[in-house]
Amino acid sequence: MQYRVAVVGASGYTGVELIKMLLAHPHFKISYISSSEGDESISALYPALSEIFDEVLQKTDIEAIKEKADLAFLALPHKSAMEVAKPLLEAGVKIVDLSADYRLKLENYEAFYTKHTDPKHLKDAVYGLPEINREKIEKASLVANPGCYPTATLLSLVPFLPYLDLSYPLMIDAKSGVSGAGKKCFSKTHYVTINENVFAYNPIKHRHSIEIKEKLELIAKELVDLVFVPHLLPITRGMLVDSYVLLKEPIDPLEVLQDFYANEPFVRIKSEPVDVKAVAGTHFCDIFARREGKKLFISSAIDNLLRGASSQAIANANIMMGLDETVALPKIAYIP
Amino acid sequence: MQYRVAVVGASGYTGVELIKMLLAHPHFKISYISSSEGDESISALYPALSEIFDEVLQKTDIEAIKEKADLAFLALPHKSAMEVAKPLLEAGVKIVDLSADYRLKLENYEAFYTKHTDPKHLKDAVYGLPEINREKIEKASLVANPGCYPTATLLSLVPFLPYLDLSYPLMIDAKSGVSGAGKKCFSKTHYVTINENVFAYNPIKHRHSIEIKEKLELIAKELVDLVFVPHLLPITRGMLVDSYVLLKEPIDPLEVLQDFYANEPFVRIKSEPVDVKAVAGTHFCDIFARREGKKLFISSAIDNLLRGASSQAIANANIMMGLDETVALPKIAYIP
Amino acid sequence: MQYRVAVVGASGYTGVELIKMLLAHPHFKISYISSSEGDESISALYPALSEIFDEVLQKTDIEAIKEKADLAFLALPHKSAMEVAKPLLEAGVKIVDLSADYRLKLENYEAFYTKHTDPKHLKDAVYGLPEINREKIEKASLVANPGCYPTATLLSLVPFLPYLDLSYPLMIDAKSGVSGAGKKCFSKTHYVTINENVFAYNPIKHRHSIEIKEKLELIAKELVDLVFVPHLLPITRGMLVDSYVLLKEPIDPLEVLQDFYANEPFVRIKSEPVDVKAVAGTHFCDIFARREGKKLFISSAIDNLLRGASSQAIANANIMMGLDETVALPKIAYIP
Amino acid sequence: MQYRVAVVGASGYTGVELIKMLLAHPHFKISYISSSEGDESISALYPALSEIFDEVLQKTDIEAIKEKADLAFLALPHKSAMEVAKPLLEAGVKIVDLSADYRLKLENYEAFYTKHTDPKHLKDAVYGLPEINREKIEKASLVANPGCYPTATLLSLVPFLPYLDLSYPLMIDAKSGVSGAGKKCFSKTHYVTINENVFAYNPIKHRHSIEIKEKLELIAKELVDLVFVPHLLPITRGMLVDSYVLLKEPIDPLEVLQDFYANEPFVRIKSEPVDVKAVAGTHFCDIFARREGKKLFISSAIDNLLRGASSQAIANANIMMGLDETVALPKIAYIP
Repeated sequence: MQYRVAVVGASGYTGVELIKMLLAHPHFKISYISSSEGDESISALYPALSEIFDEVLQKTDIEAIKEKADLAFLALPHKSAMEVAKPLLEAGVKIVDLSADYRLKLENYEAFYTKHTDPKHLKDAVYGLPEINREKIEKASLVANPGCYPTATLLSLVPFLPYLDLSYPLMIDAKSGVSGAGKKCFSKTHYVTINENVFAYNPIKHRHSIEIKEKLELIAKELVDLVFVPHLLPITRGMLVDSYVLLKEPIDPLEVLQDFYANEPFVRIKSEPVDVKAVAGTHFCDIFARREGKKLFISSAIDNLLRGASSQAIANANIMMGLDETVALPKIAYIP
Repeated sequence: MQYRVAVVGASGYTGVELIKMLLAHPHFKISYISSSEGDESISALYPALSEIFDEVLQKTDIEAIKEKADLAFLALPHKSAMEVAKPLLEAGVKIVDLSADYRLKLENYEAFYTKHTDPKHLKDAVYGLPEINREKIEKASLVANPGCYPTATLLSLVPFLPYLDLSYPLMIDAKSGVSGAGKKCFSKTHYVTINENVFAYNPIKHRHSIEIKEKLELIAKELVDLVFVPHLLPITRGMLVDSYVLLKEPIDPLEVLQDFYANEPFVRIKSEPVDVKAVAGTHFCDIFARREGKKLFISSAIDNLLRGASSQAIANANIMMGLDETVALPKIAYIP
Repeated sequence: MQYRVAVVGASGYTGVELIKMLLAHPHFKISYISSSEGDESISALYPALSEIFDEVLQKTDIEAIKEKADLAFLALPHKSAMEVAKPLLEAGVKIVDLSADYRLKLENYEAFYTKHTDPKHLKDAVYGLPEINREKIEKASLVANPGCYPTATLLSLVPFLPYLDLSYPLMIDAKSGVSGAGKKCFSKTHYVTINENVFAYNPIKHRHSIEIKEKLELIAKELVDLVFVPHLLPITRGMLVDSYVLLKEPIDPLEVLQDFYANEPFVRIKSEPVDVKAVAGTHFCDIFARREGKKLFISSAIDNLLRGASSQAIANANIMMGLDETVALPKIAYIP
Repeated sequence: MQYRVAVVGASGYTGVELIKMLLAHPHFKISYISSSEGDESISALYPALSEIFDEVLQKTDIEAIKEKADLAFLALPHKSAMEVAKPLLEAGVKIVDLSADYRLKLENYEAFYTKHTDPKHLKDAVYGLPEINREKIEKASLVANPGCYPTATLLSLVPFLPYLDLSYPLMIDAKSGVSGAGKKCFSKTHYVTINENVFAYNPIKHRHSIEIKEKLELIAKELVDLVFVPHLLPITRGMLVDSYVLLKEPIDPLEVLQDFYANEPFVRIKSEPVDVKAVAGTHFCDIFARREGKKLFISSAIDNLLRGASSQAIANANIMMGLDETVALPKIAYIP
């Protein structure tokens, strides 16, 4: 079975990662790629792909996508995404949206982003974290791909929710490679700013805070207070999220994780601290935890562009189209 | 006034940083440098210093130091340090020890390091954090230079101690450049391990935990529970310590910091998140804090080799010898 | 058709790269992996591969290899390689040797390495650069995999040999990522030595000089003088070789390259300077050239672990076993 | 004796490096700093300098500079520099220009840059390479600070000019850290482009080619042909220039260098390959050379922002004002 897929906003990093995986996907054929300007070839933007994928980006055209695609991956900025998604959904095109536009409840979205222009579809959107939401994704026409930081954070915290003393805030110190900041050149992505440096940004106020909070509260069915502070690191790809939480009673954290993820091929539980190179280039999430008394430290590593965006999008699309979820999901890291 | 100073264990990174500053110090003259092997010149080990400082390292000889030095900086591994310090102190040589040997109470030292061979001098040792302990350092013959992580952590937390809800553990996520791991080549310092990577190490169990805990309890006069997790970063120098704590009541954190450090020229309070490049090459500690409700995030940046070791040792030596504390302390960062 | 392959010396970087590709190879089944110590699992050495390839390394045992393998990849230090190859060849096992042991004429090998212990097989060894030697590789039982620097250098220079003024030495400035220096921890691979640094090493005297010279002379059928200077760069993988040569007459260098490599799917000719990220993770060699008068500059980029070693070994093995040469050769770079 | 100095274009990297050194200069007092926009404080642009130098940049005003400065450092783009220099020179302000505007003969400048708007002063401009031009700099009112690549290249090649076989082109492979590309954010300075990467840019056609050629021809008094190819490296600061040349007869290259630089405190001759960390943070130029037959390899390392721009500007200003040339020139590298 072959499905035609579009990649809208294919010129950015998550776009090119989607293309890289789709080239090896036996059931998804790239039928349409576009950007806002159009008229640039992927191999001009990414010489690495010359003689492999030399297609030219179209200027994003909704009618063309309706015609050419069974499913569209939207790798667009928030706000633009829902403007494109809305008519495509009306036309029956399945959507995996990599932006935040369909991830949150309306009131949270509007408090932290902007006025929502497609509340109708928002209410049926499914949050695309397969380990948590697989059954809903199967039936979804619209999947909101989680943010990178929330992916790593939720995968590490959800298993512990029943055991946490939620009268205390969850403290989350996150670290990401620079590819997470996108392709645009500005002072935070200038080599001289990042090299040999590390710093927090948007401490406490980062939009991924509300996404993490909302999803944890949905599962815990109680209020969850948290402090989330991201940092930029001088690496290209990779994300490490460290959480500091309190338990109600002592537990064996590795056992909790192993039980929760017993049948999950893409979550690995480690007895030594995880590192991002072991997952860079893959869909894996590696998780480590250590307890002392009721204090629990959890460390979670993913590839921010893959598990944090594009490979998770492929996983979601696989599920939506009734395919084996693991098809084309990369497993072999870029090591050494 | 000129004093003769020895640098014992001068071949490592903290040793060469001491030499770099001492070369510009108007009152300290380098009278003796040594390592365990001896017979290597500093400029052979560090070609950067050729034609600037071509002295040859002696093989460490206690009698020679007694003869040649008014004060000795010990840049030795723990255990070796106290073996060298003991006879020198007996002979009236002042000591600034960069190891952990004299930092802790006897029971804590022996629980986390090894049997102490100089408990007599240990009880008179002064913990060398000038902003906290200046008066004691003035009268000390033996100063225990704080660990790098504890320096950054204590400078950021001590001002808040009166306001913290210590029924909740302090969560401390620390990040350091690789120079902190020392000159020795092993897998954790191999370029291929570190580059493009980040990971926690010794989570919760790192020896600097007990140092931080002991000093906070000394000042707070109550028990302090904490979780300390260090990480290695792909940078050479620099240290960022992020603390996540709970307050008893809301306060203005920047005001608390500014009041506490009002007269401290080497602590800068920042209203934007700090970064390590702004302090790399200097004795500065930059601190940022942000509060939400009773949750407080504090971020503290230092140069791990300088404020975290060698420039703080120079500051302590200045105080011990009755000099202006700021002499020869570097202020101009290595930026851009 | 399935062949059983052994990877001898599988614990190093080229060994793990071989394993990564073999896992995806439809015709090669890994039947035996070993190291000198044995008894370590690949996923303990490389946590990235846990739950993907958890095999345990055997202690290298010639009899076992004879029994279990149709072809063996030797990722061993020079000298050890020929000691292992010799009995395996006698027993009819095909060999792809990644060391220098079978690359050179006897007199060159002995001048630059050590006494050769298997001159009998040496004389039938085939130099494994497919674009140049494909027909001989097809018939070979023993292929000597080229060195990394020679691969990038020869691919860029051989097309120009008929046009070069060989009365002038070829000047070759090469740059490599640190993975080329191997897994062993010593001062040249210490993070602090490499980070923020660049330097030449073994200028003029590097062993790859003689390999480049010998192969160029073999093709040109005249003496070739050259200066080869390698450098270490603060990157993990990637190799750039820049050559500065004189032509007999002006030519169109891109045309020469395009003609020479017209049917070569893994050599790409570029009209803008090449970069190593575009080939990192792949078997590609990207080549750029620019002429001014009779002066010619050629720049060639490869992944030092893949095209410079392991993927070229797979290509050679494919050819030796009569398979499609391109099977399992990686094409999708690790970008962004 | 105290002189008032202006830094025009003080917001860029070379500007801030000038300020860092001027703060420690006993005879130069910073009397005026400006940028094209004005109204930004140095410590806002460079938080590292807060509480050290909090001055506000003026919007560049010629009349104000005439009034306030004895000497002005111009850290401006080419073309803008001469527009500022011209009226200041008329008013008797001494000028050290860090741009290319006064470095070349009129015809070369106009061939490679743009139409010259101040040919009158151009003809009296002195090229500011002290080791070569000290006497002329002493009498100059206008010094053209050399380009970074030309500084490292000329210092390494000039000593060998009498011995070179100039019937062959000089082949020059240069490598620079990213700070050389300036503060502006564009794709070549994006962290993701540079990290883990290396590539040539403007091969053969870079403007520094003509500067190197012109100066060598001036000294050699014969035509000099050369190929100059710069590369960007994933480091912030540092420059390595490797030259591949032919000699007329064999010589001892280290002897030639040691003789030539016998009395030069800021050029160090090394018997092992040089590296950029040994000079980063200093005014030093380290040079290594190795010969085989008549083939000569020379490697030269400098800090591109210091010896390649700002510290050389300070050296020139010291000479112009009749001071000890070495005042305030940094000597202690940023190692480890």
